[in-house]
Amino acid sequence: MQNFTFHNPVKILFGKGQIANIAAEIPTDAKILMTYGGGSIKKNGVYEQVKSALSKHNLIEFGGIEPNPHYETLMKAVEIVKQEDINYLLAVGGGSVVDGTKFISVAVDFDGDPWDILSKAAPVKSAIPFGVVLTLAATGSEMNTAAVITKAANQEKRHFYSPLVFPQFSVLDPETTFSLPPRQVSNGIVDAFTHTMEQYLTYPVNAPLQDRMAEAILKTLVEEGPKTIANPSDYDSRANFMWCATMALNGIIAVGVPQDWSTHMIGHELTALHGLDHAQSLAVVLPSTLTVKRDNKWQKLLQYAERVWGIDQGSEEERVNAAIANTRAFFESVGTRTKLSDYGVGLDTIPLVIDRLKSYGYTALGEKQDVNPQTVEKILTLSA
Amino acid sequence: MQNFTFHNPVKILFGKGQIANIAAEIPTDAKILMTYGGGSIKKNGVYEQVKSALSKHNLIEFGGIEPNPHYETLMKAVEIVKQEDINYLLAVGGGSVVDGTKFISVAVDFDGDPWDILSKAAPVKSAIPFGVVLTLAATGSEMNTAAVITKAANQEKRHFYSPLVFPQFSVLDPETTFSLPPRQVSNGIVDAFTHTMEQYLTYPVNAPLQDRMAEAILKTLVEEGPKTIANPSDYDSRANFMWCATMALNGIIAVGVPQDWSTHMIGHELTALHGLDHAQSLAVVLPSTLTVKRDNKWQKLLQYAERVWGIDQGSEEERVNAAIANTRAFFESVGTRTKLSDYGVGLDTIPLVIDRLKSYGYTALGEKQDVNPQTVEKILTLSA
Repeated sequence: MQNFTFHNPVKILFGKGQIANIAAEIPTDAKILMTYGGGSIKKNGVYEQVKSALSKHNLIEFGGIEPNPHYETLMKAVEIVKQEDINYLLAVGGGSVVDGTKFISVAVDFDGDPWDILSKAAPVKSAIPFGVVLTLAATGSEMNTAAVITKAANQEKRHFYSPLVFPQFSVLDPETTFSLPPRQVSNGIVDAFTHTMEQYLTYPVNAPLQDRMAEAILKTLVEEGPKTIANPSDYDSRANFMWCATMALNGIIAVGVPQDWSTHMIGHELTALHGLDHAQSLAVVLPSTLTVKRDNKWQKLLQYAERVWGIDQGSEEERVNAAIANTRAFFESVGTRTKLSDYGVGLDTIPLVIDRLKSYGYTALGEKQDVNPQTVEKILTLSA
Repeated sequence: MQNFTFHNPVKILFGKGQIANIAAEIPTDAKILMTYGGGSIKKNGVYEQVKSALSKHNLIEFGGIEPNPHYETLMKAVEIVKQEDINYLLAVGGGSVVDGTKFISVAVDFDGDPWDILSKAAPVKSAIPFGVVLTLAATGSEMNTAAVITKAANQEKRHFYSPLVFPQFSVLDPETTFSLPPRQVSNGIVDAFTHTMEQYLTYPVNAPLQDRMAEAILKTLVEEGPKTIANPSDYDSRANFMWCATMALNGIIAVGVPQDWSTHMIGHELTALHGLDHAQSLAVVLPSTLTVKRDNKWQKLLQYAERVWGIDQGSEEERVNAAIANTRAFFESVGTRTKLSDYGVGLDTIPLVIDRLKSYGYTALGEKQDVNPQTVEKILTLSA
């Protein structure tokens, strides 16, 4: 096991009816900006629940945060925060609203061009405190320090991390997700699964508890994912999926182990260039990354085959192939396609993706820092 | 899954050499009371590492905190804290030192008789901040809000909880535990295993991720426990065991599931009355509790049999019996005996234990609140 630091102070309020308890989590004298997305919260009752819970608080609203939230949109919210002396944010939505709210939180008092936080990893020194009411299980943003933001002008998709953007609290009420379209639920399953794989499917460092905890999430997603797709309002399967998605990226399975994340870095460019949903891009790239980098990942692929998929027959080669095939089949089974051609993307995207990664300096990705432009080409060719 | 709140802000610094980093975690102007136990830290180098790391801090010492820390001893530390205007505590030791330090932390400014915190669950309103340098993996106290304290005068062993006693940070350096006597390592394995069982081995509530995470800890303890007993200075197995012990009682496997804890409540009385080590008392009581309460726990016992011990043959009755027998055999295999007679305790202890539990009002223990005095009698009779 590698040395590590772990610290995650986010308070989780999990379960039906928990939105009613948020008033106690926010200072009574706070001036709140409630951020949200395209307005689905006004159709599924979440908006009313939040307004009711905060009826004694001072609250104004900022809607319209897009999927892959736009820098340009968020900077409008930053102006409102400044004009209205907002001192607390409340993100009500999915990962894009949460990520966007994290960026608003740090951009308000940032000394300089806020885009530098994303493009140059410029250090942030302060953040406006915020809470989360999550309405889509997927990204884990509700319990971590990361955010991914897109500049619409040139479709540049960048990320930042800061311990200052841990949410103060996050409400996870599975009932708020009953009305989601199947595509978003499928995306969430693929996203949580891939987050786990980025931290688990590397090389062994003698960390059996972390391995088993990651396998616990993967197996539970394999088991509960199809159930929650088939029965959107079955509380238990939706709750189990929702908790998996949070646990997949709150740091607990990452402690003391190497991490990959090359699938995410390549996938971000497919989203930026071609508009694939984030999870669609992961579903396209992950199986190919596992195939192309199989030598680095051999021991873990065998362990994954046996423990997650129960594959213990055949040669090592056959077991590895079967595990990767099962991964692809699982994504397809919950409704997310896994080939570039499924999204109308041709191999002419490869030089574009590589050029963009090079422009960010991302020429040595993965747990061994050996995913170079040639590797990216192999991965995307295999994803055709 | 049941509704839950989860919040654990403890910062973990894990791995060899991490003691050197504690100065950055403690305010430079803090006046620190360093608490420790019987002095083993002066033999294994930990004392020197701490003093060296804090050479620029203002620090005084309080040694001599016993196993099952005594209220009377801790109140002496409380006096020193008051006299010396101490505003930060640093616990250097195992669970007893950490628990004792938690009590010191809340007793200093408590308005009234501090024993009421333990005997009457009197609410605490403030606590002195503290950090931990852990030297014994077992209790999980380094990452939770609980403490167990014993009044030596009448051997009353009581506990309290408060969100105010989360450590600010905890250093877990496996190397600090290399020199522990085998009995303490064995005790730690049994303690961590039993903590997990108290949260896992109850009845199903459709919480598959929590189940698998608990099973991950149990399986890792089964695998790594014997290794770390056999090779005390093997870093990896000691590190894996240490992380298991912390994860077993930091709340993460407890979310949304029922909990038992009757084994602990009964065991505490055996320690108080007869001086068994805490883990010895658990090793005696747990197999009998599982046997006597098997009807409540049937489905989980079958799952435990299959997933932790690989028992999938035979009738349900045979599998349940085999799983309980394996539990006992595991405790014995790492060096902790599992019968009252192993510790020279006769069945005449039964009315004494029951009277003490009654005096605290503990007449309906367990996940179904149906472990009554008659059940306690059955459990202890079976432990003869």
